[in-house]
Amino acid sequence: MKLSLPLIRISLLTVLASGLLAATLPLGAADGDKALLDKAKALFKPLPATSALADSTPQRVALGKALFFETRVSNDGRLGCATCHNPAFYGADALALSVGVNGKVLPRNASTVFNTSLLMAQHYGGNRVSVEDQAVKALLSPLAYGNTSYEQVEKKLQVLGYQSLFDKAFPGEAKPLSADNWGKAIGAYERTLLTPAPFDQFLKGDTQALSPQAKLGLAKFIDTGCAGCHNGVSVGGQMYQKFGITQDYWLATGSTEKEAFKGFDKGRFHDTKNEADAFMFKVPQLRNVAVTPPYFHDGSVATLPQAVRVMAQLQLGKQLPDEDVAHIVSFLESLTGEVPADFAKAPVLPVAPH
Amino acid sequence: MKLSLPLIRISLLTVLASGLLAATLPLGAADGDKALLDKAKALFKPLPATSALADSTPQRVALGKALFFETRVSNDGRLGCATCHNPAFYGADALALSVGVNGKVLPRNASTVFNTSLLMAQHYGGNRVSVEDQAVKALLSPLAYGNTSYEQVEKKLQVLGYQSLFDKAFPGEAKPLSADNWGKAIGAYERTLLTPAPFDQFLKGDTQALSPQAKLGLAKFIDTGCAGCHNGVSVGGQMYQKFGITQDYWLATGSTEKEAFKGFDKGRFHDTKNEADAFMFKVPQLRNVAVTPPYFHDGSVATLPQAVRVMAQLQLGKQLPDEDVAHIVSFLESLTGEVPADFAKAPVLPVAPH
Repeated sequence: MKLSLPLIRISLLTVLASGLLAATLPLGAADGDKALLDKAKALFKPLPATSALADSTPQRVALGKALFFETRVSNDGRLGCATCHNPAFYGADALALSVGVNGKVLPRNASTVFNTSLLMAQHYGGNRVSVEDQAVKALLSPLAYGNTSYEQVEKKLQVLGYQSLFDKAFPGEAKPLSADNWGKAIGAYERTLLTPAPFDQFLKGDTQALSPQAKLGLAKFIDTGCAGCHNGVSVGGQMYQKFGITQDYWLATGSTEKEAFKGFDKGRFHDTKNEADAFMFKVPQLRNVAVTPPYFHDGSVATLPQAVRVMAQLQLGKQLPDEDVAHIVSFLESLTGEVPADFAKAPVLPVAPH
Repeated sequence: MKLSLPLIRISLLTVLASGLLAATLPLGAADGDKALLDKAKALFKPLPATSALADSTPQRVALGKALFFETRVSNDGRLGCATCHNPAFYGADALALSVGVNGKVLPRNASTVFNTSLLMAQHYGGNRVSVEDQAVKALLSPLAYGNTSYEQVEKKLQVLGYQSLFDKAFPGEAKPLSADNWGKAIGAYERTLLTPAPFDQFLKGDTQALSPQAKLGLAKFIDTGCAGCHNGVSVGGQMYQKFGITQDYWLATGSTEKEAFKGFDKGRFHDTKNEADAFMFKVPQLRNVAVTPPYFHDGSVATLPQAVRVMAQLQLGKQLPDEDVAHIVSFLESLTGEVPADFAKAPVLPVAPH
């Protein structure tokens, strides 16, 4: 018992000294990794195993996949979900502005379909509440599928031979083949399109899953303030934010006025008509950002380093040195996941019965 | 020994009687199958294991696949080989007339890319001597990729990050990244796209590979005269033939005049300017015909039974009864192969270096 007190004192001193060292000297690599991991875990979450709804079934997912690749339902017979969300381009289309039915140029850039079911809403203005809602409303959009009524869509699907696939996907329903179930099926499929990336391994505790450059970039991403908006499971996509805090965004991006908006794109304002929403855009998720150029709501910036510079300047009033930009780009590259194998394999679509 | 002579006599009589029966009564199923197989083997060939050129390599095929799905080389950034030769539609596009760059409607229907390397030439007019030739010339066609020079194409490919892939596919060459090698790579890939079908199993001796209806249809296909043009390994695609022997083809198909041809499509004439070639078209292959509607060079006929009726009437002056049409359709369905697994899986394309 006599020796116990001095031992406890030494232990306390050691702990205090460690604390002092940690506060005043550079951390060792392992300690630094642990500290960075703790910071990251407070801001981000790894991807879940699934974002499927409770009523999803393999039949519903298979039908949704067929419909995702189906072009014959559009007004010109050429446009399907996969047109703008192409397997060869990580679920986007590599265009600044997407092109809808009958060659109509859309006023905005197509976001990747991967992980999008995890976002708070769909579209830059958030005017689609879910992937299901987006899929249904696209059918009648004059810029997207260009149909004039849901009855017309249902008739087309019947003629193409889809009845039995809807019957299997929605058994027991009074009217399995419906526009509403088009949305449910496509949504069920899109909810399978999650892309786990090296950053998820890091968040789960494997600090070696990121390169030293990517870890420096992650620290810089957090310290610069990027994570204030780009956070959560999808590293963005969970809030609206004004694009252009320090100056009008087009001064930095080179964006042009758009006829559809009678001027510059004012984001959410065009959906709500509320001046408080002027220039508010859904913060994009950053998963797969390194492989889905060009950038921003109108694809006005071609490269990722330039997009990082523009963001720091416009949103945070900071001029990032080239080294910081390079590190942040390395971190963003760690958000690139594998293309889901099943997504990349196109289905064979029904042929209308003779 | 005494009993042997009468036994031989009985045997001979039996054989003679069998011969008489065979000549005057319907064949048994097995004899009929054998006779049909012999007839078919004289007209058709099963698919080879490959149509690869001698210098093909896995690196060349992989590059060709990427280029096949690449859209950023076209003038509007939206058109690639896979646009009109879509995995979801058996290597065609399910449109009557295909749509080229900048929304230009082409004057002809897209044929499936499957097995096309086995045909005597490419395009309905045969103005492309090989799949390699077709791929190179499409780059500068104002209706297809719409580029103005091969230098422009090569520059685009460099910017997109293709240099190292060409270096690996064409090692030791002075200039691996070239328009000529674009054609060689895409050709190497397209030569892998063969689709063995039940009919190939039949031709190899498995007479049970075809249904009884398909066998009746095969016999009718031969007896009616269809196999006079639709023969060989690709069941067509090996000769030119006048479309519309008994009357102008548009009277039966509903085809319309086309601006590109300043009237009705006169086929090979538009390439050769030789009046002897007026209305001569390459006879289409029939592999996968049941799953690649609509039909004919301009997609003017929507269904396979109607296409069979039109063919018999226009080319052979025959009005086929519905039962014969149904049997021939059953036979044509036996030409449907499996979509090559690798074809259906889109590659992930290079992202331009930052």
